[in-house]
Amino acid sequence: MSKKNIIVAQSGGPTVAINASLAGVIRQAMESDTYETVYGSINGILGILHNNMIDLSAMAREDDRFLHRLETTPAMFLGSCRYKLPHYLDDSSSYVYIFKQFKELNIGAFFYIGGNDSMDTVWKLSEYGKSIGSDVRIIGIPKTIDNDLCETDHTPGFGSAAKYIASSILEIAHDTFIYAVKSVTIVEIMGRDAGWLTAASALARNEYNTAPHLIYLPEVPFHTEDFLLDVKRLLFERNNVIVAVSEGIRDIDGNYISASETTVDTFGHSQLSGAGKTLEHLVKEKLGVKVRSIEVNVLQRCAAHLASQTDLFESVALGRKAVTLSEEGITASMVIMDRISNDPYTIEYKHAEIKNIANEAKAVPTEWINDAGNDVTKEMIDYLLPLIQGESDVEYKNGLPVYANVSHLSHS
Amino acid sequence: MSKKNIIVAQSGGPTVAINASLAGVIRQAMESDTYETVYGSINGILGILHNNMIDLSAMAREDDRFLHRLETTPAMFLGSCRYKLPHYLDDSSSYVYIFKQFKELNIGAFFYIGGNDSMDTVWKLSEYGKSIGSDVRIIGIPKTIDNDLCETDHTPGFGSAAKYIASSILEIAHDTFIYAVKSVTIVEIMGRDAGWLTAASALARNEYNTAPHLIYLPEVPFHTEDFLLDVKRLLFERNNVIVAVSEGIRDIDGNYISASETTVDTFGHSQLSGAGKTLEHLVKEKLGVKVRSIEVNVLQRCAAHLASQTDLFESVALGRKAVTLSEEGITASMVIMDRISNDPYTIEYKHAEIKNIANEAKAVPTEWINDAGNDVTKEMIDYLLPLIQGESDVEYKNGLPVYANVSHLSHS
Repeated sequence: MSKKNIIVAQSGGPTVAINASLAGVIRQAMESDTYETVYGSINGILGILHNNMIDLSAMAREDDRFLHRLETTPAMFLGSCRYKLPHYLDDSSSYVYIFKQFKELNIGAFFYIGGNDSMDTVWKLSEYGKSIGSDVRIIGIPKTIDNDLCETDHTPGFGSAAKYIASSILEIAHDTFIYAVKSVTIVEIMGRDAGWLTAASALARNEYNTAPHLIYLPEVPFHTEDFLLDVKRLLFERNNVIVAVSEGIRDIDGNYISASETTVDTFGHSQLSGAGKTLEHLVKEKLGVKVRSIEVNVLQRCAAHLASQTDLFESVALGRKAVTLSEEGITASMVIMDRISNDPYTIEYKHAEIKNIANEAKAVPTEWINDAGNDVTKEMIDYLLPLIQGESDVEYKNGLPVYANVSHLSHS
Repeated sequence: MSKKNIIVAQSGGPTVAINASLAGVIRQAMESDTYETVYGSINGILGILHNNMIDLSAMAREDDRFLHRLETTPAMFLGSCRYKLPHYLDDSSSYVYIFKQFKELNIGAFFYIGGNDSMDTVWKLSEYGKSIGSDVRIIGIPKTIDNDLCETDHTPGFGSAAKYIASSILEIAHDTFIYAVKSVTIVEIMGRDAGWLTAASALARNEYNTAPHLIYLPEVPFHTEDFLLDVKRLLFERNNVIVAVSEGIRDIDGNYISASETTVDTFGHSQLSGAGKTLEHLVKEKLGVKVRSIEVNVLQRCAAHLASQTDLFESVALGRKAVTLSEEGITASMVIMDRISNDPYTIEYKHAEIKNIANEAKAVPTEWINDAGNDVTKEMIDYLLPLIQGESDVEYKNGLPVYANVSHLSHS
């Protein structure tokens, strides 16, 4: 039987582990007897539609450091897209073109690395493929710093983001503890609907650091009065109160805790300010204490220099697993991780039907949030701790991390 | 001759290298024949006034990992203060008490690690000491991420902050390049009066990354129209434009580029928004393109996990140098670094009279800014590059950096 080729693409928002899964796919395909060329589709599914693809297996053969460097490079080496396929019953034109490409390039399997929306694409392509009797395997590989994909114990990219958040909170605590004056520091962390990443701030606690002193997740309604009482009580006990909040915290009616602000200067523009800034205003006004809000910026999803080794290792393994599953004839699926035990931390790599995953989201279980709704429980810590273990062995040159050359992306 | 003791204190804002200088002082004093006990004054000069001091030499003897850990710990192990001494001719009471403490504790030298304000304290204590004929040596050890202290080639803490900024810009570039749509990203970097740290963003450029595409420093008046034309021109050439701006950029009349905003919700509060947010509004309004502003938060001064090895090495050396200078009878001085050459990078550790340093600030020379006022020159790159070399060997445990236990600070 002659060898087939594969296409791999990436989609959604960046993580530091999504290229590790890409490297896993390339490694496994190049080692397999089933596959030959590994095509990378630029900017997600759009690369197939616009005929914009690169030969990843050739790149790996030409530079033997390429795959290792790819494993430690943040964001999407292949670029991303936010393109949502219409259902093929409404408009099949994209599907017809994609499967024509599959045929012309002798494709045996297509791998899509992404989050919820990408899994929707995997599901739709699988459905269409089935309807035309295609034998191209369609497999999703999860990634998201939000950790909100169903069926899998956790998602690639989350462990590294959790490690970044915990380290940052610890470093912010050192920064905050230096003054012997009362102060409140509010750290706003990504997570519109799920509080997993904000929960990871609890990992910063150690023998001398009790911060964050309060943790608020979107899974529990946020009560302004309770928050102010919590902060007030803590300010009696100590000088510096550090609060971790999800960007997505909402009040009992489901309204985001955010303030709409109007600039009054000549560039007048109305904009929404985040939960952190809103709580900063509130503390300043109601408690009159020194207060600062910190919006952890995009580095929480792209600071590859602080990636979790466990996260990168698992991401590579999932990429490899996706390829072997396709060789076994599996399709319309996403590779997943099943946690066998916490101690020793043991993961099994499996797969789940894509129809159970696409467009579903996994929230933090309320049992893992304390009764007061301002902290997480020991179960959450036990769940999180294995995911941040180990450091990335990113290469440095001239004082800076060396990442994979992405000059094929977006320069014009 | 019986041994004397020393007191060391820290003041001003955090850096990741200020504890390395502290460790240098402790190491050198413990190795010397002149000194015995190393007292650490908690919260700067206030620790002497409030009799709040710890025995650092005892801590170093009790735990042989203490000094190494101290060298890689961010912010101030001894805490900080913003206390400004009155001139002794106006009010000598603090001086009388401080020198009484020096006498009671058999102090031979006092070392103050800090920035401009701290050097003002060093100068005032030196003047008072001279006026009463004290033989206590008073020596300042510089630190500031702003790099704006005079007489020294650069300041401890700056190289690490520069490394953090350059790495962050590179990671933000990877994060930004993934979408094939036009976008502008504005990164606001600390530096109210001096643009050194913002200039360091230029180090992020490499074989595939041309970001930041524009760099604006406070040393050059900011022209809104020129900025918009620059961005517009670049958007013709490429998809993603990344701009680095100092928080302190000002217009030709010296007014900060910032907008005063009013919240219109129930927590109504007027506040000043920064340069980054202001330019974000401007680009959105005038160019109608996708735009995001990122305020690099306090991690630029406290992310010790990404410290520059060169910076930490030099900071220890300056701490040691201060102690040996005091043994030689030097007082009323600050230890400094003199750059002998760029290639090979060679530094000599010297000292300068404190009266030439206190209350002066060093701006970026205009020759190191390009004519258009939107970038830096090769001379700046050559100056910056040696300062970010090498990585900190910070210890990790359970997935997080291990820093020195600061439970003696600010807990109540």
